[in-house]
Formats: sequence, C-alpha cells, structure tokens
Amino acid sequence: MPVGTQGAVKAMRHADLLELDAQIILGNTYHLFLRPGDELIGRRGGLHRFIGWTRPVLTDSGGYQVFSLADRRVISEDGAQFRSHLDGSLHMLTPERAVDIQARLGSDIAMVFDECVAYPADRDAVAASMERSVRWARRCRERLAELRNGSVAGVAVTNPGQAQFGIVQGGVFQDLRDESAAATLAIGFEGYAIGGLSVGEPAYLMYSVVADTARRLPADRPRYLMGTGTPEDLVECVARGIDMFDCVMPTRNARNGQLFTSEGRINIKNARYAEDDRPPDAVCGCYTCRTHSRAYLRHLYMAGEMTAGALNTLHNLSFYLDTMRRIREAIRLRIFENFRQEFLRSASRLSSDQ
Amino acid sequence: MPVGTQGAVKAMRHADLLELDAQIILGNTYHLFLRPGDELIGRRGGLHRFIGWTRPVLTDSGGYQVFSLADRRVISEDGAQFRSHLDGSLHMLTPERAVDIQARLGSDIAMVFDECVAYPADRDAVAASMERSVRWARRCRERLAELRNGSVAGVAVTNPGQAQFGIVQGGVFQDLRDESAAATLAIGFEGYAIGGLSVGEPAYLMYSVVADTARRLPADRPRYLMGTGTPEDLVECVARGIDMFDCVMPTRNARNGQLFTSEGRINIKNARYAEDDRPPDAVCGCYTCRTHSRAYLRHLYMAGEMTAGALNTLHNLSFYLDTMRRIREAIRLRIFENFRQEFLRSASRLSSDQ
Repeated sequence: MPVGTQGAVKAMRHADLLELDAQIILGNTYHLFLRPGDELIGRRGGLHRFIGWTRPVLTDSGGYQVFSLADRRVISEDGAQFRSHLDGSLHMLTPERAVDIQARLGSDIAMVFDECVAYPADRDAVAASMERSVRWARRCRERLAELRNGSVAGVAVTNPGQAQFGIVQGGVFQDLRDESAAATLAIGFEGYAIGGLSVGEPAYLMYSVVADTARRLPADRPRYLMGTGTPEDLVECVARGIDMFDCVMPTRNARNGQLFTSEGRINIKNARYAEDDRPPDAVCGCYTCRTHSRAYLRHLYMAGEMTAGALNTLHNLSFYLDTMRRIREAIRLRIFENFRQEFLRSASRLSSDQ
Repeated sequence: MPVGTQGAVKAMRHADLLELDAQIILGNTYHLFLRPGDELIGRRGGLHRFIGWTRPVLTDSGGYQVFSLADRRVISEDGAQFRSHLDGSLHMLTPERAVDIQARLGSDIAMVFDECVAYPADRDAVAASMERSVRWARRCRERLAELRNGSVAGVAVTNPGQAQFGIVQGGVFQDLRDESAAATLAIGFEGYAIGGLSVGEPAYLMYSVVADTARRLPADRPRYLMGTGTPEDLVECVARGIDMFDCVMPTRNARNGQLFTSEGRINIKNARYAEDDRPPDAVCGCYTCRTHSRAYLRHLYMAGEMTAGALNTLHNLSFYLDTMRRIREAIRLRIFENFRQEFLRSASRLSSDQ
C-alpha cells in the first residue's frame, strides 16, 4: 500500500496510482484528525469523496504517530493524551475515539488503536503494553459494533461496510506474540496485522518473529505486516506468510534521490550519473524509465526541481507494486522459491551504491 | 509558452504538457549554462534529447537573468561579467557566447543577447542601452551565420535548423522603440520579440508600447512579447498584434495557491474554500477540475503537499493554454472583438478574492 499520509501519496496524483494499478492506499488517522479534521472529512462524505479516490483505503489508528511523533504524550489506561505537532494543541485519543474518527473517514479497513513500544524494551514493559493493547482492541471492537448498530449519536459513519483489523504486538518475544495473537483472534476481526516490527530490530529477528507470528494467524484472513519494508523484506515476509504491507520507503527515499531497481538501489545524486544516458532501470516500464535518463533525473534532483520527487516516486512505486505483482504471479505458477532466490541475487548487484 | 527554467516546467512532467497540448516550452539559458552546463547538454545531443521533450523549445539568451539575478555584474561593450547565484563563480556572457550556448542547447528558437534596463530609467540611459542591444544583435546574427557555415570550432550545433529572434528594446519611449525596430529589422531575423516590458510599468503604458511597436514588425513573422503576463494581458496584447508569450505567472502563482479561473483568480488557501466541494473552475476540463474539489486542494496546500503545486499548476497552465486556443478560434471565426469583451467581463467577476 502506497502511503498517503495526509490524503495524498506524496508527489503523486491519484491518476498516477491508478496507472500503476495500486489496489489500495493508506491514510494516517493522526494527520487527518489534526488537519483538516475528521469532522470536516465526514461532512464531505468521507475520505474517498473528499480526496477523489474510489479504490480502497486503509487507515491506521493514529497510535503509532501519537507514540512516535506527538510531543508530551501521557498514556493511561483510558488512552493517550498528546500535543499536536502542528500547533501544540492538546488532544486525547482513546480506542473509542480512534474508531469514531475512522468511521467518519470511512476507510475500507480501519485499524485498532494499539500501544507501540520502542525497541529495545525489556520483557515486562513489552508484556504490560501488549496486554493493554489487547484491552484496547476489545474496546475498539465493541465500539465498532455499537457504530454498526447505530447506537452512537454524533458519529457519521460514512462507510457502513468498513472492516476492522486487529494488531498483534509483543515485540521480539515470541511467547508474548503468541499470547497477543491468541487474544486478538479471540476478539475476532476481519483481518490481522503484525505491529511493532521494523522499529530498529535486526532483519533476521524481524523475519523470525514474522514467521512464527504469521503461522498463528488464520490463512483465510489477510495478514498485514505494518510499516515494512525494503523490496527484499517484501519477498522474505511473503515467504513467511504475509499478504499486505505498507511503507513510506519507496516514496520517502524517492524524494531523497534513492531509486530501487532490479539490480539494487541507486542514489541519483551521485556524480557518476551526470552523463549516464541510460534509464534508471533498463527492465522497468514506468513513465520515468520510458521517458528519462539518469543524467536528466540527476540534473532535476541537483537543481531542486519538485518534478524530481515526482518522477522518482513514480518509479519507486512502480518497482514496489511490480514486485508484489511478480510475487503473486510466482505463487500462482508455483515458482515462488525460484523467484525469491533470483530476486535476492539480483537486488544485491548494485549494493555498493547505497 | 510554459516556462521550463531548468529543463523542466516546475511541478510538471512532459506528459502533462503533451496532454495540455503545449506546442512549445521555454528554457532559460542562464540557468542551464550554470547547471548542468551547455557542454554537458551538448554532449547529450542537445536539450530535447537531454530532457526527453520532442516538441519545440525556445531559449532566452540569458541576458535577462544576468541583469536581474546575477551578483556583481559588470557590463561592457564586450558583454556581461557576472557571478553565479549558485556558487559565486565568475562567468562572462557575450553575444557570441550566448549564441554558442544556445547552439549547444539546440533550441528551435534562440534569442539574441540583449541588455535589459530597469523601469523607470531616463531616456538617455534607455537610448544608450537600446543602441548597444542593436550592436549585440548584429554580433549574434553574425555568430549564428558562422555557426551555420560550420566555421566555428568547438561548438556542437545540435539543431542545425535553429531559428533566431531579434528583440526590440527602447523602454517606454516610442521613438526609441521605433528606432530599435527599424535597426533590428535591418539585421533580419526569423522572428521578432518585444523585450523590456512587464518590468513594472503600468498596464496602459505597456499596451500602448506593444500596439505601436507590434505595428512596426512584419505580420508574416512571429511577434513575441517577452515575460507577459496575466490572462487579460494575453487577450489585450493579441488585440495589439502579438502572437507569442511566455510567463512564469501560471506556474509560479499556482505554487503559491493562486488559481486562474473563468471568473477571475481564487486564492485556494482562503478559509472560505475549506468546505467548498466545487471544482476550482466549473467550466474547466483539466484533470484537477475533473477530479478534485476546492476543499481538497485547500487541504493539500495547507498541509504543504507538493501535489498541491502540481494540481494547481496543471489547472493554471490548462487555463492559459485554453485561453490562447480560444483566442485563435475567435480570430478564425472573426468574433475576436466579442470574445475579448466577454473574456474581460468574466475575468473580473471574482476580483475581490485577489
């Protein structure tokens, strides 16, 4: 899922995402709640109508941003009190509030409000946080049931068919992950996510937790790994049972001049590309690769042209979405393991250009 | 002509310009000379090849930027010595050099190197400057002849069919304009421009100089008014004989949140648009107007999303190019005077929102 933090995937227009055949985008509840506000979006008929995007949208719960971005947050059993990064104003986000906000946004998939802990953290802290996240998940599910019953006044439900996903926490402690998975499954959701990874732990540890956690989650429901990752991570985590991902990496790195290619990453600002007339990726069919050379993209980047961000983002999203399409195709053809080996070998060819 | 200062129209991709059916774009010699350099572009086969744009390009001579942007410039009969705004490095631009640079860039229309004076300026200064510009124009024409003969070593001519336009100067003094026009015509160019206007003089004075100067220029050659202007200016100056324009206004103002519409200008950041579900311009068929509301565009602008710049630029360029198309159609149908009256009436409807 391309990340559309504030109701737009940075540097992209919706037409670009349709051309890339993005099936779903992600919106950030924290950002949209603060600006332009979920009530304003609700009055417009929901996020789809407001932003002019007709395909699915997933919204996070705001939890991650509150814990990582917001100033002076105070966490209690009730929820999280925090100050806006925009104007310092004081706000309270509770499980119920996070569900209500997402109801107004009308996303197709809403996430439960969970607590995120930093990495590394000691076992007791992770256990206490995971248990609180389970209690919050229960409150989220109950609130959604009330909204579905129409028994909550003052909340415009702009998408009655909205699904809700639970989130498994527990850090890198597999027994806590197992406990969280069991409790989350007991509540029951339309899909399940693995949260609290890609927060600084080594890749082998993330892969291990993903593998052991994904197998606890039902195979007939979507399994979503939040906030991951590199192209290699996508392949490796699909191999471990994951169906859905979101990550700012393709878009953010693009704006910083890093392009993902079939041979690895290139930093377009490197002087070696100043007279390189080749496209960013010879085997890529995106608009950027069809139309422009590395030399031109480097010039645009060095000149500070915002078109650089757009062209680089187009390419990186194309590469990510192509990677997922190739994964699905390889699975259908029962050649995924071959594909995986070849992909990882190819992706490391240019590793010196990081 | 949309302005593509550094080899890209800001916030646009070439595909956008093709969809808007822009017939020609402008590139700035000063900027491209400093970065990435005309020699590098020449080695790539010229500006078209380098940037991936196959339609016509006009390049200015660099004169305007040297006089208005560059630090510590020293003007002599030979040319202009200046320091780069990027790194303070010392450079010299002469009429011959400006022709050579544009030969490497390979634009379809090159402009002569002229001297620009500030407004207001006294008659003697304007007269001396105009006379120098005529001498420089002669040197430019001679240099181009040498390049066409292949008698200049070390200059890669990437577009042998390049046309060269002369520029009429003379400030707001009509007798000087007349003298400049006569001298420029005597040298002989493929087309003629009026320079040194839209530099702060009142509109009525500009219109008057345009009318009286355009009538001195041959009707069978393009007449190009440099650096102008508002949509109303386009209509008014076509009425006075102008065929071609360039201006950063549609693109720069778009990035600052100002949209040109059939009813006048709107500043999308105004709070009044926060819940306005209408498109920017109800009668516009551009992607932005087809897809998005004022409320969403305001949100993107307030949130600092670069997509705001792109969507606003798309609309403004669409409005400008549509205006020129409507002008051409009205002339063909012999209803230009009716069109002009209606256009000016309509464009002032929202003047309170400036």
